Amino acid sequence: MSGNLIDGKQVAARLRNDVAVAVKSLAVTPTLAVVLVGDDPASHVYVRNKIKFTRETGMNSVEQRLPADTSEDAVVETVRALNADPDVDGILVQLPLPDHINSNRVIAEIDPDKDVDGLTEVSAGRLLLGKSGLRPCTPTGCVILAKETLGDLTGKHCVVIGRSILVGKPTALLFLEQNCTVTIAHSRTENLSIVCRGADILIPAVGRPNMVKADWIKAGACVIDVGINRIEDASRKSGTRLVGDVDFAEAEPVAGAITPVPGGVGPMTIACLLRNTVLAACARRGLAVPDGLAI
Amino acid sequence: MSGNLIDGKQVAARLRNDVAVAVKSLAVTPTLAVVLVGDDPASHVYVRNKIKFTRETGMNSVEQRLPADTSEDAVVETVRALNADPDVDGILVQLPLPDHINSNRVIAEIDPDKDVDGLTEVSAGRLLLGKSGLRPCTPTGCVILAKETLGDLTGKHCVVIGRSILVGKPTALLFLEQNCTVTIAHSRTENLSIVCRGADILIPAVGRPNMVKADWIKAGACVIDVGINRIEDASRKSGTRLVGDVDFAEAEPVAGAITPVPGGVGPMTIACLLRNTVLAACARRGLAVPDGLAI
Repeated sequence: MSGNLIDGKQVAARLRNDVAVAVKSLAVTPTLAVVLVGDDPASHVYVRNKIKFTRETGMNSVEQRLPADTSEDAVVETVRALNADPDVDGILVQLPLPDHINSNRVIAEIDPDKDVDGLTEVSAGRLLLGKSGLRPCTPTGCVILAKETLGDLTGKHCVVIGRSILVGKPTALLFLEQNCTVTIAHSRTENLSIVCRGADILIPAVGRPNMVKADWIKAGACVIDVGINRIEDASRKSGTRLVGDVDFAEAEPVAGAITPVPGGVGPMTIACLLRNTVLAACARRGLAVPDGLAI
Repeated sequence: MSGNLIDGKQVAARLRNDVAVAVKSLAVTPTLAVVLVGDDPASHVYVRNKIKFTRETGMNSVEQRLPADTSEDAVVETVRALNADPDVDGILVQLPLPDHINSNRVIAEIDPDKDVDGLTEVSAGRLLLGKSGLRPCTPTGCVILAKETLGDLTGKHCVVIGRSILVGKPTALLFLEQNCTVTIAHSRTENLSIVCRGADILIPAVGRPNMVKADWIKAGACVIDVGINRIEDASRKSGTRLVGDVDFAEAEPVAGAITPVPGGVGPMTIACLLRNTVLAACARRGLAVPDGLAI
């Protein structure tokens, strides 16, 4: 591995350690509740990992596993019961939900003070208005990786490619909060490669394998690749491999720093979920943000 | 007046006319409630204008004028009563409130479905998430003026100077919704003049008189000046006059189109408030957006 690689695994491990230290310092043990409906195999893997890391960092994990044919009303009732439980600090509803359930209605039921995924309208509003609240995990991970690499981000030009509600838009607002000049580019952007070449920090979050080429990147720029795309690769036993939105082989020699895929932004997401659970536990109890968890 | 001037007064008058036509087409008459606390003379003028235009467009106006020493709880109770009143479609709390009242607490009480100023956390969240909801008035006015001037905005590069929660950030999101590439610049932006010179649509919203000079503007760009600054002017009887954030005399020959101050964005704000009142009345009753009011 070359010297300009941003090691997301290592930064995530350090953040999980900071979370564990913060948890030990609290008089109460934060509790994360996970709601999982149905049998989607990928969702089961994600949930298992989230629970594992929740426990490893010293927090309580509560699981609500519901059968695939659970009614929407029953899922809503489950969320309401977790809202009402004073011991529960964070509520995560694993997506996707089965087709017969309206995800928007379920998410809208989550108490914004326990919304550790930052998905509710109120959480989004608090982010836009710059009020304290729970921020989405992947965008937060991007900010932590950029600060880890560059230090203070004030005045840097950050270009986000993609305007999704899960990544693009919240990422832009979080880098704005770090005093970056922020550009949001997308599929309708003209001269996209030139816009990207203006970036000190380039954040592709589109989901198109190898889209960002070497000549889209300013020499020395920090590239944080949010894309995770599975492509065919006959040389692998599985026949596939994961790549980002950046053509890594081309981009790596140009970039000042770059995240690999996998092993870049990915590991940060769960670490930021754990961080959010501690932040929620503290905010609900009127406690300050613990040392090591401020951004 | 030269040919590249964007006449906000005229566009606002047309929008008010569209509102009046829409109101006539509805089976119910929309109602806007205004809450005014205390004796601030400027606030009284604003409220008088809002009420006048509400009635001129055929809508009902309800006024709650409360003395300056009204308690915060009493203002909150007033808002709650308006929330509960099924005949009230829009609630506007005139700011600033007297010092002893926490504006954030009062605004948080407004039913988001009646939040015609678009100030609540939920309204902000709906904007960020791209869900239907009530958008802030001045940013909406900027979009209408730009579309009036340029037509379809897809692919245009829009640079917003300023990141306030009232103008800068919501304006950026609304132009993103119009498929613009959007850059948010601010006091910490490096090479601000160069960033601005990349704009097809330049929107200063800072509050610094005459800050934007001719060489900040790309030849032919559309300039929408949100700034309203009162400066000294000995040649005027009043000793003062209003100017924008743009050095108009310098910028006008370079810009393809430019709003004057006053007479540009200013008149759009009340017109968009009236539009929001109709939109709220329709959304609350499950009616489609009337012809002429879509953006």
